Amino acid sequence: MTDTTAHTQNATRLIDSLVTAARAAQMVLGTSGFATRQLALREAAKLIRTHTADLLATNKEDLAAAVKTGLSDAFIDRLTLTESRIEDMAVGLETIATQPDPIGAELARWQRPNGLDITRQSTPLGIIGVIYESRPNVTIDAAGLCVLAGNAVILRGGSDSQHSSAFLADIMVRGLVAADLPPAAVQIVPTTDRDAVGAMLAAVGGIDVIIPRGGKSLVERIQREARVPVFAHLEGICHIYIDKYADLTKARTIAVNAKMRRTGICGAAETMLVHQDVAAEMLPTIAADLQKAGCQLRGDSAAKSLVPDMQLANDDDWHTEYLDAILSVRVVDSVDMAIDHIARYGSGHTESIITESDEAADAFLTRVDSAIVMLNASTQFADGSEFGMGAEIGIATGRLHARGPVGSAQLTSFKYVVRGDGQIRG
Amino acid sequence: MTDTTAHTQNATRLIDSLVTAARAAQMVLGTSGFATRQLALREAAKLIRTHTADLLATNKEDLAAAVKTGLSDAFIDRLTLTESRIEDMAVGLETIATQPDPIGAELARWQRPNGLDITRQSTPLGIIGVIYESRPNVTIDAAGLCVLAGNAVILRGGSDSQHSSAFLADIMVRGLVAADLPPAAVQIVPTTDRDAVGAMLAAVGGIDVIIPRGGKSLVERIQREARVPVFAHLEGICHIYIDKYADLTKARTIAVNAKMRRTGICGAAETMLVHQDVAAEMLPTIAADLQKAGCQLRGDSAAKSLVPDMQLANDDDWHTEYLDAILSVRVVDSVDMAIDHIARYGSGHTESIITESDEAADAFLTRVDSAIVMLNASTQFADGSEFGMGAEIGIATGRLHARGPVGSAQLTSFKYVVRGDGQIRG
Repeated sequence: MTDTTAHTQNATRLIDSLVTAARAAQMVLGTSGFATRQLALREAAKLIRTHTADLLATNKEDLAAAVKTGLSDAFIDRLTLTESRIEDMAVGLETIATQPDPIGAELARWQRPNGLDITRQSTPLGIIGVIYESRPNVTIDAAGLCVLAGNAVILRGGSDSQHSSAFLADIMVRGLVAADLPPAAVQIVPTTDRDAVGAMLAAVGGIDVIIPRGGKSLVERIQREARVPVFAHLEGICHIYIDKYADLTKARTIAVNAKMRRTGICGAAETMLVHQDVAAEMLPTIAADLQKAGCQLRGDSAAKSLVPDMQLANDDDWHTEYLDAILSVRVVDSVDMAIDHIARYGSGHTESIITESDEAADAFLTRVDSAIVMLNASTQFADGSEFGMGAEIGIATGRLHARGPVGSAQLTSFKYVVRGDGQIRG
Repeated sequence: MTDTTAHTQNATRLIDSLVTAARAAQMVLGTSGFATRQLALREAAKLIRTHTADLLATNKEDLAAAVKTGLSDAFIDRLTLTESRIEDMAVGLETIATQPDPIGAELARWQRPNGLDITRQSTPLGIIGVIYESRPNVTIDAAGLCVLAGNAVILRGGSDSQHSSAFLADIMVRGLVAADLPPAAVQIVPTTDRDAVGAMLAAVGGIDVIIPRGGKSLVERIQREARVPVFAHLEGICHIYIDKYADLTKARTIAVNAKMRRTGICGAAETMLVHQDVAAEMLPTIAADLQKAGCQLRGDSAAKSLVPDMQLANDDDWHTEYLDAILSVRVVDSVDMAIDHIARYGSGHTESIITESDEAADAFLTRVDSAIVMLNASTQFADGSEFGMGAEIGIATGRLHARGPVGSAQLTSFKYVVRGDGQIRG
């Protein structure tokens, strides 16, 4: 046996043991009362507050190591806990606990001519694996959403945030115990060994779904290697389309907000499409607003002819998620051409049309096949909290099971409950 | 390049070309009106009827080859078309067309404090691959359900039914054309080459979901090899549990029906659990009914002590889907033990409790984590038609996306439509 094989086998055994414990815990958690699950979250929120000082101290260990390793400022910012970020985690848990019970809900009910009464009822999904990077708060958000929906969670935090994440996972466990729920409903992988990630991705029949939270390279690896289903988005190449019937005031404020409010999030706009009939009137104004806000523009030749200080865009620009203060701009001849552009270059995340025309809005909202389609609103609303879900464990662009912001209601499955009175099939 | 590699590459190119055509067709089909999709199905139903004689003649070619190959009587029965089976296909399509529109439905709608109006709306799933064996009617059922929900379908029928299936696929195409819909929404893989199946299973990003219809070995291969998500059930080890508070009359009729109505279907019961407090009273009667109906019984020692002419069951029996006139029987000491038995040995398909006790029913229906849980009804109702779905493309036991009978409403995804009036995020 080579060392590599032994190593992989150890990782597989480790994940197997976590899965076995998770399965047993999930069976109890999944049939526990809603008030009990809410209590676990509220108790954990209290513990977060009472352990603020300890959390800050633990986080300092991770930060010191990160500085020593020479990690980037952006990375260190994501890793850093502050009193206010710690309070946000506690509030986040309390907000999740105010959501309606995601399980046991009657999704549909009907009767058959033979008297059978059929209910489609929401149930927990099972065991959820969450693989994330530097942000310690993902520990709390993910575990909170999973527990509320009766799911066990296996967390795999980044190696650079291991002390902070382990401390927070322990707080979630203590919340479970305070509510008399099984502690193994929240487990964190007790090693930073990368083979453990491979073992999670291969745990078909053990882990029901994997949710990655992190940069594109993490998501790419997971989508490529996973045998377990994955809820994820690889990138957010979000579009705003300024229609022929756009209101200029709305177009200006939405364009600036969609691009510049925060440029590093997946819901930030990356491409603006402008209808040719209003390009001359609107584009120079909108472009000036964006440039004033610090945005670099890269346009096709039609756009550049109207705003000469733009760079000329090339085909790569339409494919690029800048995650930066850069926007590509294209003039289109119709709503159809806008829809076609999005079908070709978009990533199925979020697109918004700015128009006062019902017809154009209907065409866009119906025919654009993205997780989120918007009318006269900023793409930066693509977020579970903004949708009223309390929080989100991520945003999915796949079309299977979960799509768009994934809150606790999406971390469920369903079953059919058929009630009869002795019916047999003829 | 080896021959094998060249072969695989050819298969990949073939499936790629079908996917490209399917994607373009799906974009048109997926935004077509409901009446148009209904018309395609009804036109195909008409064509089935007018081509009855041609269908029978084509089917004879497949049958002659099957006889020559020495295929089993059961196989030949599944392959055989008759006038009545042909009429059933036409009626099946018409029934599917009477279902409500699966796409564009408002699944949920709410308003946010900032005035954003959010709708969760059903959309087509995309491209569905169906891999099946001998039954030619799967061509019609699968294509009908897919088209109604705005999906393109790529069909891969069994090599022994290729002439019949290709003829039926062509009828579906002609139905599409009659409704002015793109013909590539229904395609059949034009080769019986097994590499084509491998290429379908590997078509990540091309085919959105694979649905296998056939025996356990087919489903096993597909679940093992597929990189594309799969809706399937490997087996149906269905249970009936005769509770302490069972009504004996219901228990007798349901037990016989659940096991013996048709023994070869996935919803047939394979194990009967009986509460110890009523075993002496009920088991001999129920066993006599079953034996009279031709069923062989295999019981644990407690069951055998009450019905001495039973065989003694071993641990394998609890794991076995007989698909035959055989039933395993176990005496349990409580509803909890019944639930534990099902969690350990069941396949997550369908289980039924026979009881007049609300408490026992609640425990069973809540805690048994199967796709379908029943109260006082035969497990043989596990079927899309019996559920009122018009037809089913299969039954899924996974917990992701589709679970239980998969009708056209389950062959959908959803998107969020967000309507604003100029909102930007703060």
